[in-house]
Amino acid sequence: MIEKLEPAERRAALAKLDGWTSVEGRDAITKVFTFGDFQEAFAFMTRSALLAERMNHHPEWSNVYRTVTVTLATHVVDGVTRLDVELAEGMNRFAG
Amino acid sequence: MIEKLEPAERRAALAKLDGWTSVEGRDAITKVFTFGDFQEAFAFMTRSALLAERMNHHPEWSNVYRTVTVTLATHVVDGVTRLDVELAEGMNRFAG
Repeated sequence: MIEKLEPAERRAALAKLDGWTSVEGRDAITKVFTFGDFQEAFAFMTRSALLAERMNHHPEWSNVYRTVTVTLATHVVDGVTRLDVELAEGMNRFAG
Repeated sequence: MIEKLEPAERRAALAKLDGWTSVEGRDAITKVFTFGDFQEAFAFMTRSALLAERMNHHPEWSNVYRTVTVTLATHVVDGVTRLDVELAEGMNRFAG
């Protein structure tokens, strides 16, 4: 069973996750990714989608032209878990 | 130069676009697409992205698991044009 990160674990994980912040009023993390154009943004989404599908852990995200806004949380525990940290790390790599 | 649809044209176009409605308080159209799972939702997004890129006309959209919410408008005229209708028709076909 997946468990929510303890506050200290979560702070430590967020500190290492470039650009990710806690969502106000909800136990989730978020980041806005900005690319050169739509092609780059959607290429990032495609790589992220494949990782998400392999993990069976999916983002909430929106895209407007070259911007992708991502929110991650683990619904079954209504909070942030290592799955969110892992997916966030992957997305940072893909955007890198 | 692309032009906003006249009110009558727009009504006629929307009447033929299954599931699309006007956005409250903004000159745009919107539809929520629901699929069987994330794979189907993202497959739809991929086909739509390729069409959008070919048209050089891009959606504003968000995805949560098996749901894709799309908003279409033509930014240069701040309203709905034939490009939005064309992209909406394509998305309906892909979701079909």
